[in-house]
Amino acid sequence: MSTLNKQIRLAARPVGLPKDSDWEFVTEDAPQIGDGEVLVQVHYASLDPAMRGWMNDGKSYIAPVGIGEVMRAGTVGEVVASNNPAFAAGDFVSGMLGIQQYGVSNGKDLVKVDPNLAPLESYLGGLGMPGLTAYFGLLDVGAVKEGDTVLVSGAAGAVGSLVGQIAKIKGARAVGIAGGADKCAYVVNELGFDACVDYKSEGFLNDLKEPLKTGVDVYFDNVGGEILDIALARLNRHARVAICGAISQYNNTTPVRGPQNYMNLLVQHARMEGFVVFDYLKQYGEGMKQLATWHSEGKLKFKEHVEEGIENFPATLLKLFSGENFGKLVLKIKED
Amino acid sequence: MSTLNKQIRLAARPVGLPKDSDWEFVTEDAPQIGDGEVLVQVHYASLDPAMRGWMNDGKSYIAPVGIGEVMRAGTVGEVVASNNPAFAAGDFVSGMLGIQQYGVSNGKDLVKVDPNLAPLESYLGGLGMPGLTAYFGLLDVGAVKEGDTVLVSGAAGAVGSLVGQIAKIKGARAVGIAGGADKCAYVVNELGFDACVDYKSEGFLNDLKEPLKTGVDVYFDNVGGEILDIALARLNRHARVAICGAISQYNNTTPVRGPQNYMNLLVQHARMEGFVVFDYLKQYGEGMKQLATWHSEGKLKFKEHVEEGIENFPATLLKLFSGENFGKLVLKIKED
Repeated sequence: MSTLNKQIRLAARPVGLPKDSDWEFVTEDAPQIGDGEVLVQVHYASLDPAMRGWMNDGKSYIAPVGIGEVMRAGTVGEVVASNNPAFAAGDFVSGMLGIQQYGVSNGKDLVKVDPNLAPLESYLGGLGMPGLTAYFGLLDVGAVKEGDTVLVSGAAGAVGSLVGQIAKIKGARAVGIAGGADKCAYVVNELGFDACVDYKSEGFLNDLKEPLKTGVDVYFDNVGGEILDIALARLNRHARVAICGAISQYNNTTPVRGPQNYMNLLVQHARMEGFVVFDYLKQYGEGMKQLATWHSEGKLKFKEHVEEGIENFPATLLKLFSGENFGKLVLKIKED
Repeated sequence: MSTLNKQIRLAARPVGLPKDSDWEFVTEDAPQIGDGEVLVQVHYASLDPAMRGWMNDGKSYIAPVGIGEVMRAGTVGEVVASNNPAFAAGDFVSGMLGIQQYGVSNGKDLVKVDPNLAPLESYLGGLGMPGLTAYFGLLDVGAVKEGDTVLVSGAAGAVGSLVGQIAKIKGARAVGIAGGADKCAYVVNELGFDACVDYKSEGFLNDLKEPLKTGVDVYFDNVGGEILDIALARLNRHARVAICGAISQYNNTTPVRGPQNYMNLLVQHARMEGFVVFDYLKQYGEGMKQLATWHSEGKLKFKEHVEEGIENFPATLLKLFSGENFGKLVLKIKED
C-alpha cells in the first residue's frame, strides 16, 4: 500500500482576499526520492502574510507560485527517507516544503532542528523566519540603540512580538500597536513592552500620545496604510523606518495607499528602508543562535497559534488578514 | 535724506499657489545697525521651491515665516555699514536677508563671497545652497559610486543640474527628467548628462526605457508625485532614494500623493532618505571649496535665470511651479 500525499495547490490568482475557488485539493501518491534527495513528512506549516504576495503574478523578491503548483510555505517535519548523506530518517528539519503532507528536497534548503530544545512549531516562529525577520530588521535596518523608542505594528504577531522584546534586550523602549485589548494586555504583561495601543479603539490616536511623547526613533512596520502615516508623523530626527510588510494593503483591489507623510523623512532627515529576511541568508546561523540563547535565558517568549488539518488551510490563512490569530499562525499538517 | 527700503512681507498663508493678496509691499526707512551688526544692501535674492513650505504654518525643519514678516530668502549683497569687526563696507556676503533692499545681520549667518571668482548670483546657485544641496544629497544620502545609474528629476533646475554633473564626475551614469525638449537638450548637450527624458512628452514612460534599462541605483527626487512612483518601480537592489523636495505637491489643496510603489523598497532592499541642506551646516566649507574647484576646472556648469525688480517677486516665484524658469531662478533686487 502506498502512502498518500494530500496537497493544497494554487488554482487561480486571487483578486482581493483568497477564495476557496483559488485553491485545489489534490491527493496523490507520496513522491519517490532520487539520488541526493530527502523525503520529509511535514508536521507543521507556517502561515505568513507574505504568502499573499507569492500568489500574485509579477516580479518580486521571489518568483510567484505557479498556477497548479503546491502552495509555497515554510514547514518543519521529520525525514522519513534519505538518499542524502547529510540527513537520516528520524532527523527533524525545517525547509520550504509547501502545504502538503510529504515533500522532497535536495537538502540544500533544509536546516536540522532539535525538538528537545524547543517545540517543533517554534522553529516556524521565534526560532524561525519570523524571529530572524525581527532580529535582522530591528538590528540592521532599524539600527536600534540604547534609549531609542521603538514603535512596532502587529505587536502581538509573529514578528512584532519579537521586535519589541529584542528592543528591550537592547535597552530601548518598546511601544506596540495591536488589535484588541487582549492582545495589548499580552504584549505589555507577558512580553514586557513598555506600552501597547489598540488600533481598533476609538481613542487610538489619543492613546498613542503618552507612550510616544518623546517621538519615534525606530518604526518597524508590518501593516502599512494609515498606521504607517501615523508613525511617519511622529518620527524623531534621524529616525529609521524598517519596512517589513504591509498586511493592510495585501488584499487591496484598489491601488496601494502610499504614505502621504513621507515628506517627514525630509523634515527629520529620516530614512525608510525595506528588507526581506532572505537578504540575510548568510547570517541565519548567527541570528538563530542568538535567538535560541535569549529564549533559553527566558528573555524571549514565543506564542504559537496552532490550527489543525491541511483541509483547513484556506480558512486558516484568512485569519491573518482579519487579525483573528493570536501568536504565530501555524497549521498542523501531520495527522495523529 | 534717509535711504528707503522696499520689502515684500507675507500677508496671508496661501491656499494652493500664492496669490497677489498673500503679499504686502512695504516701503520704510532702511534700518539702523546696533552693536555688532552689519547692514547689507541686497543685490540678488534666491527663489526656491522650499519657500512655499516656509509660508505654511506648522512644525517643519525651520519655523514658518510669520504673517507680517519680511519673506525669508537667501540673498547676496554688499556690506554698506558695519559695527562688526568681521565685516567691512565693500565686502560681498551671502546670507538669509529676505526679500528686501536692505537687511541687518549680526554677522553669524553671513559668509563672504568673492565676486572676482564667479558672478555674484552664482553664490545663490551652483556655489550656494543649490550646489551644496546637490553635493551632500548625492554624495551622502545617495551614496553614489562609480558605475551607478543616477536618475534625477528637475534635471534642468538649480539642484538637479548639479546632481547629474557631480554624478558624472564620480563616474556614474546620469539620467535626467525635465520638462520640455529645450531643457532636455541643454541637460544632455551642455551639462553632459547621458540622457534626459521630457516628462511633458506623451512618450515619457517609453522614452525612459532605454536610458534606464539597467535600472536605477540612485534616484534624487525634487518633484515627488507620479515621477517618484515611476522611479521607485525601477529601483535596483540596494538602491538609494534621496528625497530633496516634492515640488509637484507643494501647492496641493488635496492631500499629498504618497508613493504607492514604496513597497518596492522591500522587494529591492532599498532605502529612501530625506534631507535638507541645513543638516550639513558644519561641512559647508568643504562642499563650497569642492564645488568651486570643479567649477574652475570646467567640470561644473551653472545657469542662472535672472529676473529684475523686487516688485516682480510674486509673479517670478510662480515660475518655479509652472517650470517656466530655465536655470537657477534669482531676482535682482538692487536697482541700477
